[in-house]
Amino acid sequence: MAVYTQLGAEALAAIISEFDVGALVSAKGIAEGVSNSNWLIDTAGKDGNGARFILTMYEARTEVSELPFFLGLLDHLAARDCPVPRTIHDRAGQAYRLHDGKALALIEFLPGVSVSEPTADQARAVGAALAQVHLAAADFPGRRSNGLALADWVELAEACGADGLHEISLGLDRQISDELLHLAAHWPRDLPHSVIHADLFPDNVLMLGDRVTGLIDFYFACHDITAYDLAVTHAAWCFSNDGTHFDAALSQALLAGYESVRPLLDEERAALPILARGAAMRFLMTRAYDWMNTPADAMVTRKDPLAFARRLEFYADPANAGLFGRA
Amino acid sequence: MAVYTQLGAEALAAIISEFDVGALVSAKGIAEGVSNSNWLIDTAGKDGNGARFILTMYEARTEVSELPFFLGLLDHLAARDCPVPRTIHDRAGQAYRLHDGKALALIEFLPGVSVSEPTADQARAVGAALAQVHLAAADFPGRRSNGLALADWVELAEACGADGLHEISLGLDRQISDELLHLAAHWPRDLPHSVIHADLFPDNVLMLGDRVTGLIDFYFACHDITAYDLAVTHAAWCFSNDGTHFDAALSQALLAGYESVRPLLDEERAALPILARGAAMRFLMTRAYDWMNTPADAMVTRKDPLAFARRLEFYADPANAGLFGRA
Repeated sequence: MAVYTQLGAEALAAIISEFDVGALVSAKGIAEGVSNSNWLIDTAGKDGNGARFILTMYEARTEVSELPFFLGLLDHLAARDCPVPRTIHDRAGQAYRLHDGKALALIEFLPGVSVSEPTADQARAVGAALAQVHLAAADFPGRRSNGLALADWVELAEACGADGLHEISLGLDRQISDELLHLAAHWPRDLPHSVIHADLFPDNVLMLGDRVTGLIDFYFACHDITAYDLAVTHAAWCFSNDGTHFDAALSQALLAGYESVRPLLDEERAALPILARGAAMRFLMTRAYDWMNTPADAMVTRKDPLAFARRLEFYADPANAGLFGRA
Repeated sequence: MAVYTQLGAEALAAIISEFDVGALVSAKGIAEGVSNSNWLIDTAGKDGNGARFILTMYEARTEVSELPFFLGLLDHLAARDCPVPRTIHDRAGQAYRLHDGKALALIEFLPGVSVSEPTADQARAVGAALAQVHLAAADFPGRRSNGLALADWVELAEACGADGLHEISLGLDRQISDELLHLAAHWPRDLPHSVIHADLFPDNVLMLGDRVTGLIDFYFACHDITAYDLAVTHAAWCFSNDGTHFDAALSQALLAGYESVRPLLDEERAALPILARGAAMRFLMTRAYDWMNTPADAMVTRKDPLAFARRLEFYADPANAGLFGRA
């Protein structure tokens, strides 16, 4: 959460003039997005009645070569009435532009706020919106493989090293290596795949009351097991932040909302326990890696890896085996 | 530039509901303001047509006891058609509220962007807007003394210590002590006083083209020598950021714009050279102090004190004695 690049008003006005959106009226750097710079932009609008956008400048962590996938996906989903922001193309029809060697895109602004204590009705709406994305993405032609799949979790664990993990928490190294072996042995291979969001935390959902007004931040989107995305969303929505408290009502509502739009196959439902363990492992590993590689006093807030070690324990506990069974 | 306090959507909605502005529609933490947390807020508006505000949460550096002065001043100036944002009072008529022990205020949103390379026409408009504030504040009843006046510069120099200043730049300690003695001996005592903004850098001015749409961030406002505010604005607008290049056209335009609304007395104009040296010293000392007391890797960007040491040299150079003479 930061603005990494400083852009003066003159530079911003010149950038905005490349789009058919009217003259720049206001620009505020916003504290959103972990790895890109973002501005909330107001313009006079095509008709003079005003219009509003998010201008994103892609910093080091986003590959420019992947922007056609990310931005094309937004356009594809928006055209199918999914609640995602459209990409505004410039006068030459391009979805992104280069400025001083960095890519930037102008994205539709959507109203809504990100909830921090979701209700069951909100979880239900998010489940339905996620299923809508999965269906709508079926005919999207772009392809992107998941850069944070099982093989990558193993690599991250190796990069952290057993000593480093043990230092984060006694025995964490052993918990991770045991779990990685379990996942490698049981990871499902024949489930339906599709485009997935892969990071649908409450931060990445805009809501007005119980209505989803925007799914945002598709920069981890990729092709992978469809039901894995539901498992990620489950891990992201159904626990207290620190992972100590599981909320069964949110869990049931999320699954019911999802199935109201896209009913799960029996084999998908049966795989949810292992997919959820994988989802918890994915965030445990990236957080552990970032924890070890981010100075405590850096500009970015470090996120506690143990919040996902606790989710992992919860999902792996035989006492919770019935969690994903049919109600 | 940061959001220091995290406020969830639920807390924000509850806060906004205390004002008669309609329900919360969007909230984005914005990277603005050095010492407070700010959100750009959209609501449904009183009439359902939408409205927009800045929500400011005052962090440690702003005294709650001073908010009636700062916020009352905004209302006073706005009522006299100065381009400043109004404070929105809550349903109980209060200009600020307390939330978890911190004060927060809802402020009118104004369009415009902050220029980084001002033109002469823009400097002229800023000079005129500053003079307008000086005249409009004449009957404002609030009082606040300047917490960063000459005596405070001396204290800051003592707190930095000669060794620390010398470490920033060879001889800086001597430049500062000589200059402080000169300022103490020559600081004017009988010039008109008024409320002054005291920090009118381009960052704190919103513009659309050559028009000033907003003067913001009045949290250094106080009573002091009126022409000192023009000197501060001169130091802030008429040099390259690093202080190496002076722009005579901007200087002339700023002064002419000011005098188009409030002509300077002869004694004010005669005092501008010493006031400008004081203005440069004020920012040199706060920057030097912050430089020595902010870790290089902290979240706040350190501002180079030497940018104002250079301005000080420029103003003190006898070759520039004619700078503020009548054109």
